[in-house]
Amino acid sequence: VVLDFPVENLSAEDVERLRSIYEPLTRSVRELIDATIRTEMDADAVAAAKAEIDMATDRLRARQLAGPFGVRFGSDGDQMPWGNVVVGLRNPVAPPLSMQRTPDGGVFADFHLGSAYEGPPGHVHGGVAALILDHVLGEAASSADRPRLTGTITMRYRRITPLGDLHAEARIVRTDGVKTYAVGHLSDSGGVTVEAEGVFIQPRWARE
Amino acid sequence: VVLDFPVENLSAEDVERLRSIYEPLTRSVRELIDATIRTEMDADAVAAAKAEIDMATDRLRARQLAGPFGVRFGSDGDQMPWGNVVVGLRNPVAPPLSMQRTPDGGVFADFHLGSAYEGPPGHVHGGVAALILDHVLGEAASSADRPRLTGTITMRYRRITPLGDLHAEARIVRTDGVKTYAVGHLSDSGGVTVEAEGVFIQPRWARE
Repeated sequence: VVLDFPVENLSAEDVERLRSIYEPLTRSVRELIDATIRTEMDADAVAAAKAEIDMATDRLRARQLAGPFGVRFGSDGDQMPWGNVVVGLRNPVAPPLSMQRTPDGGVFADFHLGSAYEGPPGHVHGGVAALILDHVLGEAASSADRPRLTGTITMRYRRITPLGDLHAEARIVRTDGVKTYAVGHLSDSGGVTVEAEGVFIQPRWARE
Repeated sequence: VVLDFPVENLSAEDVERLRSIYEPLTRSVRELIDATIRTEMDADAVAAAKAEIDMATDRLRARQLAGPFGVRFGSDGDQMPWGNVVVGLRNPVAPPLSMQRTPDGGVFADFHLGSAYEGPPGHVHGGVAALILDHVLGEAASSADRPRLTGTITMRYRRITPLGDLHAEARIVRTDGVKTYAVGHLSDSGGVTVEAEGVFIQPRWARE
């Protein structure tokens, strides 16, 4: 498999202009997702809201990409994974996580999960914990010039995670050829809720 | 932890009426999510769409649940996990999966993943595969009167999964006291892409 990474060489100003157009839209759609799950309004109000939503969708679809967003690049070579389901600033499904790097090469993110990520009542779906930890360990294992994809990953659930303010972090344990071993965890204010460990592989197309 | 499962004893007609009000709304929001990621419209059109979306959100929030949706019950004791991030018919983030049971007790689902679930360009985020497999294995391990939560789960990625039409299935391997061992996989038309195995635990509050 060879992945398609269009290189657009957008200037920093272009990137900032695009962000200022699309980020507020995405934030509004995240609010709408929460409202859709929690509304107790009746059939007439829901139908009126649906009509407004369909109008917005038609407006946005008048000119659109033929497929999913993919990854674009700025002129500095920085990735713009704006469609990504975990970190994408144009993807309303993403919380989104804003990944930060520590001086020793680890990564972490502080974020909020609301009603859209529910599994057991009032709690984060175990699979959402897995989604986030897969991404965070993958980021720890990768660098800009060396993407690595998950080979195997194991989650250990110590207790269920409440919806709300959460923290995730990960770091590399060791690298052995094309394999990088990483560990990490998800936590709330009371401590660790889910632990993860995984092996991340440098794909063949990224080995040159 | 004791989870809050409000019993509402809704009649079959009530459930059907609620479904007919809220399911079309949720479908419209799923379309909007896709349009938000893929639109190439300019600032004016995006601002107009955002205004319509914010109007719809205000309308829906005029009366809403204080928190996340949780799980409601019909009068027949059936669960209505309508807010669930994988199967919830009121959650726009859910693809949603419609789980089916085979005569031998296994479970499966056929579903479509579009641009909202992207990780590597054109492909399903590895963590989304984990989200779905966690849910499908958990369903295989559980029954209506015996919920089981994930204890540990391991994913093995055999190749990356393209966005599009997919299949997931799982079955119980064995049960040993409060622990149930389950296996499953995700596949596309070309075969298995991700394998999973996990241990699911009957929570203390559900052991009586």
